[in-house]
This record gives sequence, C-alpha cells and structure tokens, in this order.
Amino acid sequence: MSHIITADSVATSLDALREQVPLVQSLTNIVSANFLTNVLLAAGASNAHIDNVHEAAGFAAIAGGVLVNLGTPDDATAAAFRVAAEAAQKADTPWVLDPVGVGGLPWRSDIAVDLLRFRPTAIRGNASEIIALAGLGGDTRGVDSASDSIDAVPAAISLLNHSDAVSASGPVDYIVGRDSEGVVSGVRVSGGSALLPRVTSTGCSLGGLVAAYLAVTPTALEGLVAAHAHVAVASEIAEKNSTGPGSFAVAYLDALYTVDADTIRTLARVESFELPTGAQN
Amino acid sequence: MSHIITADSVATSLDALREQVPLVQSLTNIVSANFLTNVLLAAGASNAHIDNVHEAAGFAAIAGGVLVNLGTPDDATAAAFRVAAEAAQKADTPWVLDPVGVGGLPWRSDIAVDLLRFRPTAIRGNASEIIALAGLGGDTRGVDSASDSIDAVPAAISLLNHSDAVSASGPVDYIVGRDSEGVVSGVRVSGGSALLPRVTSTGCSLGGLVAAYLAVTPTALEGLVAAHAHVAVASEIAEKNSTGPGSFAVAYLDALYTVDADTIRTLARVESFELPTGAQN
Amino acid sequence: MSHIITADSVATSLDALREQVPLVQSLTNIVSANFLTNVLLAAGASNAHIDNVHEAAGFAAIAGGVLVNLGTPDDATAAAFRVAAEAAQKADTPWVLDPVGVGGLPWRSDIAVDLLRFRPTAIRGNASEIIALAGLGGDTRGVDSASDSIDAVPAAISLLNHSDAVSASGPVDYIVGRDSEGVVSGVRVSGGSALLPRVTSTGCSLGGLVAAYLAVTPTALEGLVAAHAHVAVASEIAEKNSTGPGSFAVAYLDALYTVDADTIRTLARVESFELPTGAQN
Repeated sequence: MSHIITADSVATSLDALREQVPLVQSLTNIVSANFLTNVLLAAGASNAHIDNVHEAAGFAAIAGGVLVNLGTPDDATAAAFRVAAEAAQKADTPWVLDPVGVGGLPWRSDIAVDLLRFRPTAIRGNASEIIALAGLGGDTRGVDSASDSIDAVPAAISLLNHSDAVSASGPVDYIVGRDSEGVVSGVRVSGGSALLPRVTSTGCSLGGLVAAYLAVTPTALEGLVAAHAHVAVASEIAEKNSTGPGSFAVAYLDALYTVDADTIRTLARVESFELPTGAQN
Repeated sequence: MSHIITADSVATSLDALREQVPLVQSLTNIVSANFLTNVLLAAGASNAHIDNVHEAAGFAAIAGGVLVNLGTPDDATAAAFRVAAEAAQKADTPWVLDPVGVGGLPWRSDIAVDLLRFRPTAIRGNASEIIALAGLGGDTRGVDSASDSIDAVPAAISLLNHSDAVSASGPVDYIVGRDSEGVVSGVRVSGGSALLPRVTSTGCSLGGLVAAYLAVTPTALEGLVAAHAHVAVASEIAEKNSTGPGSFAVAYLDALYTVDADTIRTLARVESFELPTGAQN
Repeated sequence: MSHIITADSVATSLDALREQVPLVQSLTNIVSANFLTNVLLAAGASNAHIDNVHEAAGFAAIAGGVLVNLGTPDDATAAAFRVAAEAAQKADTPWVLDPVGVGGLPWRSDIAVDLLRFRPTAIRGNASEIIALAGLGGDTRGVDSASDSIDAVPAAISLLNHSDAVSASGPVDYIVGRDSEGVVSGVRVSGGSALLPRVTSTGCSLGGLVAAYLAVTPTALEGLVAAHAHVAVASEIAEKNSTGPGSFAVAYLDALYTVDADTIRTLARVESFELPTGAQN
C-alpha cells in the first residue's frame, strides 16, 4: 500500500516547516518579490532573493530549496535561472519551476522548456501554463488562467517525465506526483478564496512556499500538497477577516502565520482523486 | 454640441471596465510593480508586467492597453519601452505614457521625448512632469510635484500635439483632451485624500488604471477622467477608514474594489473647466 | 565633555526630519523598493529610486542622502552603486552602505569592500554582515543574522576607519560613531518587536531612514541613532495593534507616521554603552 496524503500528513509537514525554518532562494519576478518573501516569513520559512548570475549557482548549492519563477525574465535573470537550476540539480537541492505566462509568450516558453533538462523537483502553475508546458496546446492570457484546473491533469501527468510532482492551481488544485514508493497518485486540495485572484502574487508566492516545503518533506508530492493546503486554509480564514482585496492580503499573511497543525487538521480539504485511465506513466 | 463628461459617464465607464476586465501590459518601475497590479486587480482589470525586449512588442499587440512608466528605467527596459510603444501604435492598442521624473533627469527626459513619436493615446503625470515634457521649463524634485496642477494646463494642451488626452495630477486633477467630435475640452476632477502622496505608487498605479480604462472607453479623454475619478472617490472613502498611510493603502485597495457605479454617481466630482483663451489647438 | 545622545536628541532629530522632508535617493533591492519608499514617506521624508548608471551620479549630487543597499545586485546596478557613491562623496551628500548578504556571497562582498573607498557616511547591517565586512570572519545566512548584535561591536568600531558611524541591528541595536567632537562613543537602542524579522525589508527600509536622518542631523552618529529609535518605537506601537506579520506591517507604517517628538521622549530607549577597552581608534 502506498502512503496516503491527508490533512494529517499536511499538519506533520507544517510542523516540520516551523521547526526547520528552511531557507529558500527565490529567483522570482519583480511584481512578486516582496509579497513572496513576506509569505515565506509569515508561513515559517526564510527567503533570500538571489538572481544574479554571479551568485545564483553558489547559493543554490546551499539553499534549502530554490524557486525559479518566469514572471518577468530578462536576459540577465534568464542566465541566472539556468545556472541556479543546474546547480540545484547537481547539489540535490530541491527546486521548483513556476512557468508564469508560458504558452502565450514564445521567448519565455523556450526558457521554460530548456529548464526542464535540469529536472525541477516540482512544477507549479495555473492550468493553462501546465497545459502549455506539456506541449498539449492551451494558451495563456497574461498570468490569469484560462482553463479549468482539472483539464490540466493529463498535462500534469505527462510532465512527470521531467519532474517528481506537478500542480495545477485553480479554485480546486490538482496535484500529481510519485509517492514514496514511486507510484503516481493524485491529490486534490479544495478551499481557498475567491479573493485570491484579486491579489497579485498569491500564485507566485505559493511557488515559493512549495520550495520551502520541499526542503522538509520526504517526497515532492507531499511538499506540493502541504504548500497548497497551507495556502487554501489561510486564504479561507483571511476571507472572513476582510472587506476587499487590500484587507484580504493583510489577513492572508496573518493567517499563514497563525495557522497551526490543529487548524490544518480541522480545515484542510485534501483528498485523493482517481487518475485518468492509462495515465500512470 | 460635444458630449459632456460627468459623474454619470464615469459610472458608465466603470461598468464597462467591470464587464470587460481589460488586460493591461505594464512596463513600470520596480517600486510600483506590485501595488500597480493590485490596484488594477482591485479596480476590476487585469495586468501582466512584460517589460523585456523579447516579448514587449508581441504582447503590446494583443493587450487591451499598455502603460509605459519611466520610474526606474535602465538600458534593458528603455529598449523595451520603445518596442512596446511602437507595437502598440501599429496595433492600435491604446497606450499611456507616465513621464516620471522627466525634467530633472536628462537621460530619461530624452527617452520620454523619443517615445512621443509613437503618439501615446494618453499622457499622465504630475504638474512639473507635464510642464517639463511640454518643454515649457519646470523642474522635478524626484517624483514629487513642485508645481500646482492648474499651472500645467497650458503645457497639457500643447502636448495634445502628441497625444489624444493629457492629465496633470494634484490635489485637483486637470485633464484635457479631444472629445468624440475632436473638440478640445477640459475636465477637472476634485476629491482624493491628503494621504495619497504618503503612499508610494498611487500616481504610477493611476497610470495603469488609465491604460485599463482606455481599453473600454470611446475616447481617451473619457478614459483619463474615469481613472482619475475612480481613484479620487476610492481614496476619499479610504481616508475615512484609515489611521495613517499603512491602513490607508489597504483601505484604498478595498475601496477601489467596492466602489460601484452608484458610488461614483454620488461621490465623484467631475466638472468641465474653461480652457485658457487661444488654447484650443 | 562630548554631547550625549538621548531620547531627547532623537526627538529633536525627528522634528528636523518632519520640517525639512529630506529627499533620499535609494539604490535598493527589488524586494524592498516599495516598502522602503513607503517607510520613508510615512516617517516624513521623500524617496526617489534612481539606480541606473546614467542618472545615479547626477542625482546623488543633489539628493539629501543616498542609500546603497546590496540586496539584489546585478552588473547594471553594481555599476550604478559605484558612480552614486563616488558622486555622493564628491558632493558631500551623506550616504549609507547597507551590506546585505556580505560575507556568505563572495561577488557582492567584493562590491561592498570596493565601495568602502568612497567612505560611506554610515554603515548599517545586521551583526553577521558587519562582522563579515570588517573582515573579522562571521558568515551570513541569507539576509538573516546569525550573530548577536553585541558581538559585532568590535567589528563596528574597526569599520570606523571607513565610515563615521556604524550600526549592528538586532533585538538590541548597537551603534558606534564619532560624536561632534570626534570622540568615538557607543549608543544602544532597545525596544522593537519580535514581529520585525517576520516582515521583509524592515531592515533595508531602516537603511533608507538612516539616509534621511543623515540629511538633517549634525553627526552621522545622531542620524543613525535617530533612525534606529524611530523604528524601535514605531514597531513597539505596531505590535500592540497587530495579530500577525501582515497587520504588523500596516500598523508599522501608521506608527512611523503618527510617532512624534513626545512619543519618542516617552518611549525611546536610548543609552550610552561602554566601549570595549582599547577600542577607541
């Protein structure tokens, strides 16, 4: 029997995060850099934004986890993405690829595909980005998602050729990956808030949180699920304490901080889902 | 008779924004990138910050509106400004020039003047920037405004040689532009809050909101007025719910989100003003 | 007798800040750019983020104070750091070096050491950065501090060969510098909040506030102490009005704004401390 991921295992991962305070290295876009760091600090991790080509590789070798986010690439940061991903792979530092805008934007799509050769530990995106990255078509409208996240499950499974676990964010998050025995399984995380898409960088900062959880969980699948569930629970709590997107963002940081293992056990909605027939590769 | 812009027409523009959710492409400075995106999401639009030279032109051709903000230019982004503005003009995508710091800083002043050849649909700045850009002298003190916004009206009118509509922000905003029949007219937007200048990027994000409104309004003049009025009303509401600049910024995002057509009709102070004699060019 | 720095002198410095509204030029990292500007505006100063090599020197000559922060350097901004520091020195504009991450990251460590030749008016860092910069060893873990701030006092004193005043931030801040008669003395600022390290850029924005105070105080030592005390008092007030790091950051901006000379006199804990024997160089 393979290990089943539940709200209980998420609670265990959260305790591990709080105890180990993993240090993330972020190579993220200029829109999300501040909020992402605040999300990591609030959740219980730490972050250093190191995205110059001179230091990115050296730091990736010592960081707990690395995030490469394609939100606002330019020639200088694209070069840093490559050396950071390569160094992370060599040093066995878990790293996350967040393929923001891939599909609609050819230049960064090439960068994303090229980065796959360094085998990201996990890939996190919205449905259209995951579909596009898997080469199944799809198209992206800026950083918004045009597709429903369940539609991205086949694409996510096919990306397991390049990564250990893949998530497609949406009103419900669909996550696939190999469990501790190498069996591909699917986990669905429900909850969240309709205000999440009204605050920028909630998705990008989730990518950073994935990098933090990867540093403390036995499998990439568990890390991905834990990050998604932490965010879903915190945003549910935040919505109750807010009157619009401004107060929601503030309450969200507070909730990421105050959520503990008990809150997770009570509120997280984490369920296995049946993979499409023939999907297990 | 030319069409008169009133709080009623602003309310109509707001409804159009909420219905169409225009996608803005921002090429903005690193201070404002996050807040500007949050302002657009809260107000009812969408934003993609795409400012690399490889993708800026392609995206400008499909975006609903483009913002070029000169706040923190460097060689890489300055090149992207040019290709984005050129592509926007070619594709008939409305685009906004926000000439931050122009006047006091010679390097970016040259960039701004060069961008005028791609004929921005609208220009938004503070009084000293508008005066400087028009070549009438003036000087800028960082990004603060040294002049009163009414003093910038003649400069704004002269910039209509390069643009369809021009606004000078201040305690009262003065906006000039051609109406639907090509007649130059002036609109004054009052209101706002004394806390607005205590929060960075409130001006820059207004520039982004102008780009969003231009995507949904029949004339640039109406788009400019609608963005200014939306901001003035939201900041008035926000001031009542705040105890300093931190809580004001939060309440401002909430108010941008909750303001609806009725709020605009009740609170917006939008009036025509007489242009200086001989000003109509 | 040399002049003793107390809560009273900090209150005088705050009044000077509010009256003169100094204009800071920041060359800071992309994580802190927005928050730092909001901190300066809330506190009573002004900020222009000008970090391109074409404009950085010219602006440094006219700014009230300059901040060079090494948080996210790349080749382009590193070149701007040099010309800004050089121009500031030539023009007698006070400038602050914030050596973020120095020690653990060799590339930026070389940049920091090179910048010392332009003699920063003040240096502000956490304990491990100050120790590393002084060449006494130490190591940095991202931007967190691994050492206790009192351990950095000997390193801070040795850096007075390159600067007029040096501070090491921590739960208690230790500040050393020459007073108005050239005598080296030490000042300790207590207070603050345990939530400060849970919000990114609180340290970096303190560096910006130092640059603002340097523009209005007779000695660098007084400027450093005033900035640290303003921050310590505001964060103490903010903690009482917050339920986590999100609401703390908001309340912190509000408190920086509402704190006045009387609040400083009542709440600031500013004390001289005995320098280690033989330390006065």
